[in-house]
Amino acid sequence: MTDVPLPPGSTIGILGGGQLGRMLSAAASRLGLKTHIYNDTPDAPAFHVAAKGSVGDYDDLDAVASFARQVDAVTCEFENVPAAALEAAGAEAPVFPPVKSFEVAQDRLTEKDFVSALGIAVAPYAAIDTLADLKESILRVPPPCLLKTRRFGYDGKGQARIHTLCEAESAWESIGEAPAILEGMVAFERELSVVTVRGRDGTVRFYDVVENVHKDGILDTSAVPAKIPSALETEAQAIAGKIAEALGHVGVLTVEMFQTGGDKPGLTVNEIAPRVHNSGHWTQDACLVSQFENHVRAICGWPLGDVARHSDAVMTNLIGSEADDWRRYAAEPGTAVHLYGKAEARPGRKMGHINRISPKT
Amino acid sequence: MTDVPLPPGSTIGILGGGQLGRMLSAAASRLGLKTHIYNDTPDAPAFHVAAKGSVGDYDDLDAVASFARQVDAVTCEFENVPAAALEAAGAEAPVFPPVKSFEVAQDRLTEKDFVSALGIAVAPYAAIDTLADLKESILRVPPPCLLKTRRFGYDGKGQARIHTLCEAESAWESIGEAPAILEGMVAFERELSVVTVRGRDGTVRFYDVVENVHKDGILDTSAVPAKIPSALETEAQAIAGKIAEALGHVGVLTVEMFQTGGDKPGLTVNEIAPRVHNSGHWTQDACLVSQFENHVRAICGWPLGDVARHSDAVMTNLIGSEADDWRRYAAEPGTAVHLYGKAEARPGRKMGHINRISPKT
Repeated sequence: MTDVPLPPGSTIGILGGGQLGRMLSAAASRLGLKTHIYNDTPDAPAFHVAAKGSVGDYDDLDAVASFARQVDAVTCEFENVPAAALEAAGAEAPVFPPVKSFEVAQDRLTEKDFVSALGIAVAPYAAIDTLADLKESILRVPPPCLLKTRRFGYDGKGQARIHTLCEAESAWESIGEAPAILEGMVAFERELSVVTVRGRDGTVRFYDVVENVHKDGILDTSAVPAKIPSALETEAQAIAGKIAEALGHVGVLTVEMFQTGGDKPGLTVNEIAPRVHNSGHWTQDACLVSQFENHVRAICGWPLGDVARHSDAVMTNLIGSEADDWRRYAAEPGTAVHLYGKAEARPGRKMGHINRISPKT
Repeated sequence: MTDVPLPPGSTIGILGGGQLGRMLSAAASRLGLKTHIYNDTPDAPAFHVAAKGSVGDYDDLDAVASFARQVDAVTCEFENVPAAALEAAGAEAPVFPPVKSFEVAQDRLTEKDFVSALGIAVAPYAAIDTLADLKESILRVPPPCLLKTRRFGYDGKGQARIHTLCEAESAWESIGEAPAILEGMVAFERELSVVTVRGRDGTVRFYDVVENVHKDGILDTSAVPAKIPSALETEAQAIAGKIAEALGHVGVLTVEMFQTGGDKPGLTVNEIAPRVHNSGHWTQDACLVSQFENHVRAICGWPLGDVARHSDAVMTNLIGSEADDWRRYAAEPGTAVHLYGKAEARPGRKMGHINRISPKT
């Protein structure tokens, strides 16, 4: 790891060409940096705003290595990059975030073990490798609970809810009998997240805590400020900082949490994402330096940018055909429209988002 | 001219690949729009953030036509696009702003005639075609005055200052004996500009009036709010609106003015630019919708975006080697760094800018 920052004119390689890669590319352009996108399909949104693009499978290690040789640093827009691809890229160029962040975030069991070992509260959980494990664990993690595959789950995919013991078998089948964890459902007041950024020199900065609402397992809205006491905000940021530090993370790290406990509020960590995150999209329009630009600054060894919030904001995702209303949203005062350039608006697909800002309260 | 807006996924062709084209491209990407850049050299900054690029001379009308056939609308990042190129592009795709805006802005004499015919104050001026014209006009436009080529002048180029009659001959030679105008120097309190945007449906919006300071003929800083009475702000915007209307302009139009008259303030129009403008760069970080995005919205027939300012701002250009200090600027709180990705920092070359924002006063 070097202390010399990548100067303007350098090229960042991004594994993944979706909307996060697209917005990372646009942010990099503000800093005079070029991007080179690597994606497994040719029609990805990020190719439209990149200096260069390569199409290849993530398992094609020669292609990944060739891509990495052409850039000055490599980063990822999604956490499920195969370990072998990260290794192939890392042999040719520095890769940020570090491999450890991916190892932990790719596996729900490793993640839970890692977070709870730091003394941070997580939901009750158990490792499930067989149907027998599941039946036995339901006694310790009582329903209602969630069975989740350890790997490759996102936006509610790879999950089954269990209300009674007799649903165990069908739940096990529905997730494909893959290695899983059984998670107790947390009774929560609010869903929160902390978008944090850690530089190559270990400097950490936190955006304001976000209050999230999910709909059908997909993020619907993210609002700042969250309606929480300031002591809880400080605690949430401290938790995120502890995790970032323990990972030796470099770049943006997002920690999703539940606010629990009614009058005596507490925090339970739900999930970590070693990357820019949907719940940080409001930073594009309510902060001077967005999560995307700060991720780029961090991985390039630049000074981190100002995370102060100049406005209140509510981000709303546009899912599937909701993006067809772009013209109406574009006409709304105080509203910024962000569309991802995806050709096909399939149900459940994230097509864009809007940020509604208002004067800071 | 059609009333149907270009939907997300459409491609905007941009003639010119400099920093303005680069920032237009990044802004278009927010709206799910693609860009295709046409430039006369291959190493231009805008190519790094565009879906497609074409390299060709602006006089190569076949190449320009072929470019225009591949896009859904054409716009320009500079005003000196040859008329024949605009015509060649216009035969294949709608071109915004309209040709009239270019005709007026490309020629200082046409511009002065056009603006003064609207009843708007301009500096005293005279058309100069010969040395004899110049010697005779100095009697009516007394020194100190400026001799400026009618066409292709920018950032103080193609200009000569005349302090006494005996400098006439050397001034005439220094501007290459090209068709020119002689302009009286205006004693001013402040240099102001109004960045305005006019939609395809004739809707007009104004950003807050900007106060500019030039150094060596190049813009140094732009600050908002300008320290002027609100009645003068309204008057400045009305002038810009009148010009935009008279041109039938579509897109961003910038009008540079002098505040004159001491206690009884008045406004004299100095120059108009039918495009996004250096004095509007602060809108990237102090407004929800920047001049770049609003230009894109206007030419695509979208609803115009919110021009309200959420913060005070001072934009400072980074000229030549000033951009070498990027690391220091990047570490400053409240400061956004914008670098253009130009390989070579020649003296006088615009390499980037910084926007310093602070809470709205």
